[in-house]
Amino acid sequence: MKNILILGAGLSTNSLIEYLLSNAEAHDWKVIVGDINEALARKKVNGHPRGEAKIFDIKDETESWRTIADADVVISMLPAFMHSMVAKKCIDLRKPMLTASYASEQIKELDEQAKKAGIPIIMELGLDPGIDHMSAMSVINRVKEAGGELTSFYSFTGGLVAPEYDNNPWNYKFTWNPRNVVLAGNGVSQFMKRGKYKYIPYHRLFDQLRVLQRKILKYGNFEVYANRDSLKYREIYGLENVKSMYRGTVRRPGFTKAWNVFVQLGVTDDSYIIEDSENMTYREFFNAFMKYEPNVPVEIKIQEYCEGANDPVVFEKLKWLGVFDNRKIGLKRATPAQILQKLLEERWTMEPQDKDMIIMQHEFKYILNNEEKMIVSAMAVIGKDQDETAMAITVGLPLAITTKLLLTGKITGEGVMLPIKKQIYEPVLAELETFGIKFEEKEYMLG
Amino acid sequence: MKNILILGAGLSTNSLIEYLLSNAEAHDWKVIVGDINEALARKKVNGHPRGEAKIFDIKDETESWRTIADADVVISMLPAFMHSMVAKKCIDLRKPMLTASYASEQIKELDEQAKKAGIPIIMELGLDPGIDHMSAMSVINRVKEAGGELTSFYSFTGGLVAPEYDNNPWNYKFTWNPRNVVLAGNGVSQFMKRGKYKYIPYHRLFDQLRVLQRKILKYGNFEVYANRDSLKYREIYGLENVKSMYRGTVRRPGFTKAWNVFVQLGVTDDSYIIEDSENMTYREFFNAFMKYEPNVPVEIKIQEYCEGANDPVVFEKLKWLGVFDNRKIGLKRATPAQILQKLLEERWTMEPQDKDMIIMQHEFKYILNNEEKMIVSAMAVIGKDQDETAMAITVGLPLAITTKLLLTGKITGEGVMLPIKKQIYEPVLAELETFGIKFEEKEYMLG
Repeated sequence: MKNILILGAGLSTNSLIEYLLSNAEAHDWKVIVGDINEALARKKVNGHPRGEAKIFDIKDETESWRTIADADVVISMLPAFMHSMVAKKCIDLRKPMLTASYASEQIKELDEQAKKAGIPIIMELGLDPGIDHMSAMSVINRVKEAGGELTSFYSFTGGLVAPEYDNNPWNYKFTWNPRNVVLAGNGVSQFMKRGKYKYIPYHRLFDQLRVLQRKILKYGNFEVYANRDSLKYREIYGLENVKSMYRGTVRRPGFTKAWNVFVQLGVTDDSYIIEDSENMTYREFFNAFMKYEPNVPVEIKIQEYCEGANDPVVFEKLKWLGVFDNRKIGLKRATPAQILQKLLEERWTMEPQDKDMIIMQHEFKYILNNEEKMIVSAMAVIGKDQDETAMAITVGLPLAITTKLLLTGKITGEGVMLPIKKQIYEPVLAELETFGIKFEEKEYMLG
Repeated sequence: MKNILILGAGLSTNSLIEYLLSNAEAHDWKVIVGDINEALARKKVNGHPRGEAKIFDIKDETESWRTIADADVVISMLPAFMHSMVAKKCIDLRKPMLTASYASEQIKELDEQAKKAGIPIIMELGLDPGIDHMSAMSVINRVKEAGGELTSFYSFTGGLVAPEYDNNPWNYKFTWNPRNVVLAGNGVSQFMKRGKYKYIPYHRLFDQLRVLQRKILKYGNFEVYANRDSLKYREIYGLENVKSMYRGTVRRPGFTKAWNVFVQLGVTDDSYIIEDSENMTYREFFNAFMKYEPNVPVEIKIQEYCEGANDPVVFEKLKWLGVFDNRKIGLKRATPAQILQKLLEERWTMEPQDKDMIIMQHEFKYILNNEEKMIVSAMAVIGKDQDETAMAITVGLPLAITTKLLLTGKITGEGVMLPIKKQIYEPVLAELETFGIKFEEKEYMLG
């Protein structure tokens, strides 16, 4: 019997645990779920005969060592900063490790040690990063093998509410960590267009949206703003010679223009405390970022101070959220970002019956036989319910399938790896299709 | 004989060393100047019989310990982050210490230890912080002692080029650390106006300037933008009940509107590296922050993209700097801020004959006998030459005078202190006047 150890039983582990448990009997696996919160782990295992729940605390050196020593493979779903602690133990104990998180510098530094230990540490096995890499590499390698030369790569991903449940003026709800949504884009966005490097500072990011022009999905219209670092994917994907490289986040049309009001005001800042935030109202909070003009109502000031806020569609979104409400915030010593998050959580929370949706679209331009062509490859996934959300499915299944491939000897390797090699992405994408996670493709002639 | 140890022989130490050396014979002092660069220390001592130059490296535990042990008082002019290392040694060896830098959290934590050791650590003894505290507290205490109630405090400081040498379109030259000028204001600016907290994010800071309205100096017109944290001065100055509290930086009219173009573009960012910065031209660099529109010249794009850049006065400033020049940057792996700094240094450097100027103005509103009044207190200092700049004079003399007062027993105390008590600021301000550093005052009836 092989022991699969899953560390962390949070939001995004449902589909992962479900898949591994349902395949446990056939492959003679035991699935051990460890979490600081043992009750949560037990809930996820749900009495399955092949499952086991246990307390896991990475700071408990002896016990966490022992738990990892008993495993044949370790899947870390812990907060990202803990992965390197887990990885070091996995290296010492020669246990393969998988995560859905970015390969941080700390993790990359462990590459040689992992190679010496003869174990793979496979990172970025979720949705984004994860399915994005696999689906992109699948097309990139196909084009290259046919003798094509890639000239441009655009890629867009977003977590949204499914159309049927999309019933607020923002066409948005929190389907994922609200804090990450509030802080999204903070920093500079770097990309490349027709051979020119482009840099957008955070405060200009949301006034430079793109429309998702090539509509090959049946889910309506979308817009996109740039992610932080698109440039590093040139190397990862072997696209050093492309002239355009851009990755972006997908939202429904109108979202970005309204969000830009918050960024212009500065209320997404998480670096300092607002004085007396507890006794302030939301109206006073937003007013604190505008000029002192006591005789001008906040509703007018915001339109004068923030580009776009005088658009009735934008203004309606702000009003609906409660930006102008004389309601107390009630948060002690809060940062602007924390206050904004609280306001948003009152309005953007998913209802019990709501379902989420993942949208991913890649656009590849290439030259083949002197013809300029384009492949658009896109996927939409709708969640099943509040447990098996589209996010949990698309994050958990690639991890689960890769774990199976590893345990059955279909994947081999040592060191820190990403799912950019055929050996991994081909079988994973093939099995994802059986779960309805399938990329539609369309080809265009250009020029 | 008493030994005065000055650590660091950088830019701002000229007037400090000069003052102490000229008073050394009368008070039987020896002035020891320590720097990593012994030649620099020797140049500053300039063969004075009461002076001594020596190598000082704070990282050399044994030698720096010995050097401090020989001193009766230590003046640290080292980079700010080194002060706490010096302070710890001063506490162990029971040597009073003075600096012109902000009392950091690290320094404040040493308060109790300094008290136990029975020595004062007097911080913020330069211009800003330094003379600003002393001159403000002098008026604040006078108003309070007369029974007045302060309602508002505004304070403005700037380092500029003296009018006679003010001959470029920006009316600005680097009279101080260029890097600090490029990064100035980064973060959020917090102040208070008529009882309301106000927050301005960095990207909006330079579109919210104030005109220096109350002109009591004879040096023309000025504008002001907000400093980062004005709120903390309420507590330091005992102004917990004021309704308005604002500290700002002084520039010549028009500077801020043009600088705002750089902030809007994002070229003051110091947090990431521009790809291939070495081979880029300045024109290409600025273009990288604007949209991809190869058929639109950068000169037009910048006017469309940045508020204010279509003002001919602003545009002229940008053009004069070389923003549109096809000249190579030639800096390897540089951040945007480093590239901007290089461009500015080519244009804003002081000529050998140029003199600098310091402007400081406080505006106090208060109620006395049911009348609302205002005191404006302002100072201008012009540098003597490139060695004794206004900056070096106003940073160095308060430090030097305080050192004298300490060694002659006129100042006593223990622990971490600021020059906000009469015991310090009265004699220092009085002696500063003999050097022409004198606040003019004017009183207004309000309402």
